Amino acid sequence: MSGWPRPGTVYLVGAGPGDPDLITVKGLRCLEAADVVIHDRLVAPELVARARPSAVRVNAGKRPGGPSMPQEEIHRVMVAAARSGAVVVRLHGGDPFVFGRGGEEMVALASTGIPVEVVPGVSSAHAVPACAGIPLTHRGLARSFAVLTARTCQEGSLQAQVAALGRPDTLVALMAVGVLEALEEALLESSWTGGTPIALVERGTTPEQRVVVTRLEGMARVAEAAGIRSPATVVVGDVVALRAAIHTARSPPFREGRPWPVAAEGVAVRAAEPLGTQGRSVIQVAAREGDA
Amino acid sequence: MSGWPRPGTVYLVGAGPGDPDLITVKGLRCLEAADVVIHDRLVAPELVARARPSAVRVNAGKRPGGPSMPQEEIHRVMVAAARSGAVVVRLHGGDPFVFGRGGEEMVALASTGIPVEVVPGVSSAHAVPACAGIPLTHRGLARSFAVLTARTCQEGSLQAQVAALGRPDTLVALMAVGVLEALEEALLESSWTGGTPIALVERGTTPEQRVVVTRLEGMARVAEAAGIRSPATVVVGDVVALRAAIHTARSPPFREGRPWPVAAEGVAVRAAEPLGTQGRSVIQVAAREGDA
Repeated sequence: MSGWPRPGTVYLVGAGPGDPDLITVKGLRCLEAADVVIHDRLVAPELVARARPSAVRVNAGKRPGGPSMPQEEIHRVMVAAARSGAVVVRLHGGDPFVFGRGGEEMVALASTGIPVEVVPGVSSAHAVPACAGIPLTHRGLARSFAVLTARTCQEGSLQAQVAALGRPDTLVALMAVGVLEALEEALLESSWTGGTPIALVERGTTPEQRVVVTRLEGMARVAEAAGIRSPATVVVGDVVALRAAIHTARSPPFREGRPWPVAAEGVAVRAAEPLGTQGRSVIQVAAREGDA
Repeated sequence: MSGWPRPGTVYLVGAGPGDPDLITVKGLRCLEAADVVIHDRLVAPELVARARPSAVRVNAGKRPGGPSMPQEEIHRVMVAAARSGAVVVRLHGGDPFVFGRGGEEMVALASTGIPVEVVPGVSSAHAVPACAGIPLTHRGLARSFAVLTARTCQEGSLQAQVAALGRPDTLVALMAVGVLEALEEALLESSWTGGTPIALVERGTTPEQRVVVTRLEGMARVAEAAGIRSPATVVVGDVVALRAAIHTARSPPFREGRPWPVAAEGVAVRAAEPLGTQGRSVIQVAAREGDA
């Protein structure tokens, strides 16, 4: 372990899905050695705080819809800092190469001759469902999954994207708040039935996690009624129904107030109904009431 | 951080994709506190060694095709150990809920009243491609991906599974060694063209990592010629072509001998040709030579 992280190197590090303890050992080691940290807005403040007091911290993104640092400016800062001999950590929410801009950053740095390395992170795509009690795959129930993000969709293209994905056993849509109506419509027009179980997970893996379980038809209305806000993850498929069985394990929070949501055991009610427990709000709506 | 990991609790922990430093901070903390560790055969020995000397270690799986511990026996051991007051860690390769048996274990434990908790891990599905220089998504090139495992496929079902997944921008097949011919055929019969770039990554993220880049048509033959062995990950789609650009960044290994593979820069040759560098073997075959 001698001699690294190395000065003059850029590390593209995945911060994980929200819970700061879900960064990797390698990622944390890079962060704690960093001279310059450029982080996404969704990265937990507790993680950014793990950098040395002397480290330069750059917030690359502000609020949704608010101003963000242009990607070219991020590249410029990384190059300048690395050339000055700094250990540079570019800290991405989730994984740098799964709906992050890590690939672009890697390609941009390639022409400069600056050493650059990716340190994969736990992706929200599977960890947010997991911490809501939903495995993406399950023997006899689901043996494939697909992931898309609504964030990069151009006007009108969400439908084409959903159609192209066919009928995986499980579908995960990231950053879908704001396009939930279009997503619902696209799924119904593709090969998903109205009764398909749906989970909406807001601020997954954090103490503020909220989960709404419902069915595909009407999910946008249910999400609106529940006040689901960004960032949220949508899970589509029969695995969502496992949540009830898994929660009968009455999993306690991993530490005080986080991150395992404790729901009423096996409860399935027909209307949105808050079941606040352990400082987090869990709402469960009928998981399956027959296909539409 | 007081009072945990807690005695009498089962932690389903993701060990990550191979490199032992890619476990999460939380997962390592559980492992280091464990009284009983039940681990998959693919988990790095260095990680299992992080458990206390007094910890009981159980290898739940032997070699591929060899005997494994029956799933019911794993459940029985977990329950007995937790009831005796032990901190139990069930250490899964990758993530427990992505092609692991974590969901089953969670459901089985649910009926016993034993507290159980999932600690997500870095999934091989995205981390193995990443450490081979391949982002699963990339602006303007790929904004969705799908993942399947060949391991759980019944005879003849691979084709149906590939067809059901439609045409995601990127497709990842785990555990596909042994069914590469069937996979190639299924992809060609689905909506993938013969010229689609393919990467085969053997023992991804470890010092023994080997990468073969080729095209879809003929990939089974190329893999056989290169001697690709299990475990290996197959990446399908245009993002594979980014590997050449990303490798011009001449990424050094993160530590001596691992894990970033250094390939000849941008080399694309027509026949399989070993380009051994830095103690690892990289073979690059024409990434794209027009569709079949």
